[in-house]
Amino acid sequence: MVDARFYSRKGPFTLAEIASLTGASIYENGSSAHANSFSDVAPLDKASTSDITFLDNVKYVENFRASKAGACFIREKFIPQAPLAMQLLISDDPYRAYAKIAQAFYPAAKPNPFISDKSNIAKSASIGKDCTIFPGAFIDEQTIIGDRTVIGPNAIVSYGTTIGSDCNIGGGTTLSHCIIGNRVVLHRNVNIGQDGFGFAMGKDGHVKVPQLGRVVIEDDVEIGSGTCIDRGTGPDTFIGSGSKIDNLVQIGHNVHIGRNAIVVSQVGISGSTRVGDGAVLGGQVGLAGHLRIGAGAKLAAKSGVMSDVPPGASYGGSPAVPIKDWHRQTVTLTKLSHKRRPEDD
Amino acid sequence: MVDARFYSRKGPFTLAEIASLTGASIYENGSSAHANSFSDVAPLDKASTSDITFLDNVKYVENFRASKAGACFIREKFIPQAPLAMQLLISDDPYRAYAKIAQAFYPAAKPNPFISDKSNIAKSASIGKDCTIFPGAFIDEQTIIGDRTVIGPNAIVSYGTTIGSDCNIGGGTTLSHCIIGNRVVLHRNVNIGQDGFGFAMGKDGHVKVPQLGRVVIEDDVEIGSGTCIDRGTGPDTFIGSGSKIDNLVQIGHNVHIGRNAIVVSQVGISGSTRVGDGAVLGGQVGLAGHLRIGAGAKLAAKSGVMSDVPPGASYGGSPAVPIKDWHRQTVTLTKLSHKRRPEDD
Amino acid sequence: MVDARFYSRKGPFTLAEIASLTGASIYENGSSAHANSFSDVAPLDKASTSDITFLDNVKYVENFRASKAGACFIREKFIPQAPLAMQLLISDDPYRAYAKIAQAFYPAAKPNPFISDKSNIAKSASIGKDCTIFPGAFIDEQTIIGDRTVIGPNAIVSYGTTIGSDCNIGGGTTLSHCIIGNRVVLHRNVNIGQDGFGFAMGKDGHVKVPQLGRVVIEDDVEIGSGTCIDRGTGPDTFIGSGSKIDNLVQIGHNVHIGRNAIVVSQVGISGSTRVGDGAVLGGQVGLAGHLRIGAGAKLAAKSGVMSDVPPGASYGGSPAVPIKDWHRQTVTLTKLSHKRRPEDD
Repeated sequence: MVDARFYSRKGPFTLAEIASLTGASIYENGSSAHANSFSDVAPLDKASTSDITFLDNVKYVENFRASKAGACFIREKFIPQAPLAMQLLISDDPYRAYAKIAQAFYPAAKPNPFISDKSNIAKSASIGKDCTIFPGAFIDEQTIIGDRTVIGPNAIVSYGTTIGSDCNIGGGTTLSHCIIGNRVVLHRNVNIGQDGFGFAMGKDGHVKVPQLGRVVIEDDVEIGSGTCIDRGTGPDTFIGSGSKIDNLVQIGHNVHIGRNAIVVSQVGISGSTRVGDGAVLGGQVGLAGHLRIGAGAKLAAKSGVMSDVPPGASYGGSPAVPIKDWHRQTVTLTKLSHKRRPEDD
Repeated sequence: MVDARFYSRKGPFTLAEIASLTGASIYENGSSAHANSFSDVAPLDKASTSDITFLDNVKYVENFRASKAGACFIREKFIPQAPLAMQLLISDDPYRAYAKIAQAFYPAAKPNPFISDKSNIAKSASIGKDCTIFPGAFIDEQTIIGDRTVIGPNAIVSYGTTIGSDCNIGGGTTLSHCIIGNRVVLHRNVNIGQDGFGFAMGKDGHVKVPQLGRVVIEDDVEIGSGTCIDRGTGPDTFIGSGSKIDNLVQIGHNVHIGRNAIVVSQVGISGSTRVGDGAVLGGQVGLAGHLRIGAGAKLAAKSGVMSDVPPGASYGGSPAVPIKDWHRQTVTLTKLSHKRRPEDD
Repeated sequence: MVDARFYSRKGPFTLAEIASLTGASIYENGSSAHANSFSDVAPLDKASTSDITFLDNVKYVENFRASKAGACFIREKFIPQAPLAMQLLISDDPYRAYAKIAQAFYPAAKPNPFISDKSNIAKSASIGKDCTIFPGAFIDEQTIIGDRTVIGPNAIVSYGTTIGSDCNIGGGTTLSHCIIGNRVVLHRNVNIGQDGFGFAMGKDGHVKVPQLGRVVIEDDVEIGSGTCIDRGTGPDTFIGSGSKIDNLVQIGHNVHIGRNAIVVSQVGISGSTRVGDGAVLGGQVGLAGHLRIGAGAKLAAKSGVMSDVPPGASYGGSPAVPIKDWHRQTVTLTKLSHKRRPEDD
């Protein structure tokens, strides 16, 4: 079903292979009518007997009962409702299992290693084994690039930057004053390491404060197109391993983001704020500077956060408050505004 | 009046030519003092007898009565208030007529066709007639580019991308996994077709869900600088013909935008949301995922939309509500906060 | 303490040199135990006897009293609390003095002048003395670039653009239809001079209104990565001298920003709005079109401004109101929502 210009499919895989690749366990339901070779992934309502699918949300149980999929990742409790002809793969996290098998069918495209003679690589740059450097890429002196890393067309790797192995640096992306781990994906026109916005302000002009830190990005981070991460003032700006940052996000100097955080598109994080492990920041959230957002905290989209948020808490609104209080404020204001009559004015 | 370094003017045009180019009708008012050759466009208060202008808003009737413009696009009802020496062009939509004649005086600059030998064009790329390919542009294998299309400096057209005729792709723009129609304008450092932000989230790390769709952009779409449009997960992300998208907008995977929609700067549209034909989204609006915004709906700037919006409705606020309710909430809160006294606390 | 890959330090400086460079005055406190040569800057709590630091905020007086710094910029009133072994430099604006000396220790890196033979410079371009033009930069016909200006890798300077002396144009930045002063810093993937978002809207399609103005940027302006500034419709878009604009800001056509304004990240300014000298716009602020923001006005982060703001006023909220009113609204809504009980519904 995919456009063959852009995607090529691996497989087919047997049920045993799929179980092994995903950590799911096969539920033996005694029927003999089952498929045992699977050639693609598909949603519940579109899957055929050669497809594998998943059920993750109780909302879709009806689709599950009617599905023609050859196999399905499900939680154990849904076994009784499965169609007879469907193979069952039991998982505590069916969507995660599905993601893994989808990756097996459609591994991320990887260009053949080559170094374009139309790239611009300085003499002292150290380029690892089996790298791909596209035309127009600029790689300055004293840079280090690990094995199998891809540098996209017209990307810019400025003086002294270090990039790990198996990274993918998108076209037009600019890097300076940064240290990047392994398996990091930077999409396109990302900007990492420019000066932070630091000035000694004054009526007669603002004096720039030299920004003397770096950006440190750990392993397995992914950063979306157009996102900007300023370098630290002296301390570093830091993005912990496994964190995923969407497009057009702004991250100020000295910000510290923990591991496995999620930062959705167009978020802005002001200088020196710390975001804990596994926190989730919804789209267009704004954080003031010098705050602490606890591990596992969740901020609703468009929140304007002006104070610390405890670990595990859910906040929303602007100024942001605990999410129940925000909902209560919204309801209160709605009711009061409907009660008002002209004579109240 | 324009800076001749940047703009060159066509013309002059006669009144009959102007009427023909814009669909306006000439009102014969019997005076003989009229100009009949027009060499430029200008606003009401700056126009001279050789200029053509327009009246679109009743606020400017005084300027109209005092204007020295040689000709003016107006609605019929304003005829009695016109200066005697002014030629009148009657139109139901004077601003639209003005836009058309301004285009005639100042057609969009178009470089002479040439293909720079400092561009990087793969062997299997198919380049149409009379294209312009600037230095540093990277055009990968299996791409198709229509006639008279311009590819700006350092733009990136990745594997398999198809672009129609008479398009203008700005400098530094990156394209992949997309199909683009005719007469499409992409400004600069636009990013189309990167992976959507799709992960099976988990405490021990987030697993990427392969993004297997495309971005389909129909004819006559215009997209502003820095805007990002993610490709679909399996379905496509879709932008309907004639829609205009401003700078720094984020459009998530599987979003479907109808025809002739207007999306102002810094809007964010979450995954799988559908925006109907002719809808207008004000600046910095945020839309949650999986919503339906009806045809012709209008969303005030900075709205945070968390539920469907009916066709033709106007909404505002965050969470967004019908615009009258939003205004009522604002007034209610203002009044209540002014009524409060210390002893209320 | 800095990473020597990225920064190199000048100095040391004597106390007299530091006073002279910053305009601070030396306070003779009679002790003989003082250092007189300083080799670095550091914060109060990390400084050693060879470092210079500053005290700007009364919150840090305890750190000041305990600091081991060899010298410190302070306001006169803090003299009595200084450690005995510390040299004192008296200044009305200690942070500004600190910024100046930090610049002396760490001047902005400046590449050696060179013009890459992998850049693309048109024949009629005029390039000043001692410029640096990186590989992949595209400099079109009829452009003028002043002395000692740096054009980053893959930057695009389109037809007719004028850039002053001592500017730094970042990698991937695109410029057209603009006139840029001296000592201007544009970070990376900045987009200046594209068409504004101007259409005569209609149900059957939107007609583009030619954008016939320019962007004029005065001296000493700094503009962050990813920021977009549209050119004027006929009048110019204007950024006054000394103004500092952060990353991912959107500035619409005909906007006029005065001198020494501060515009924080992700702000959006709609067409024809005027921002006065020294105004400060917090992160993610949105301004409607055709407004006047007075000189020295302050807009809290995330404000949605729909009406004029007087000079010197502080506003917040959305719709924005005087900041005291906004705080009162927030308090009122919080209290009312906590008072509500189920029987109120």
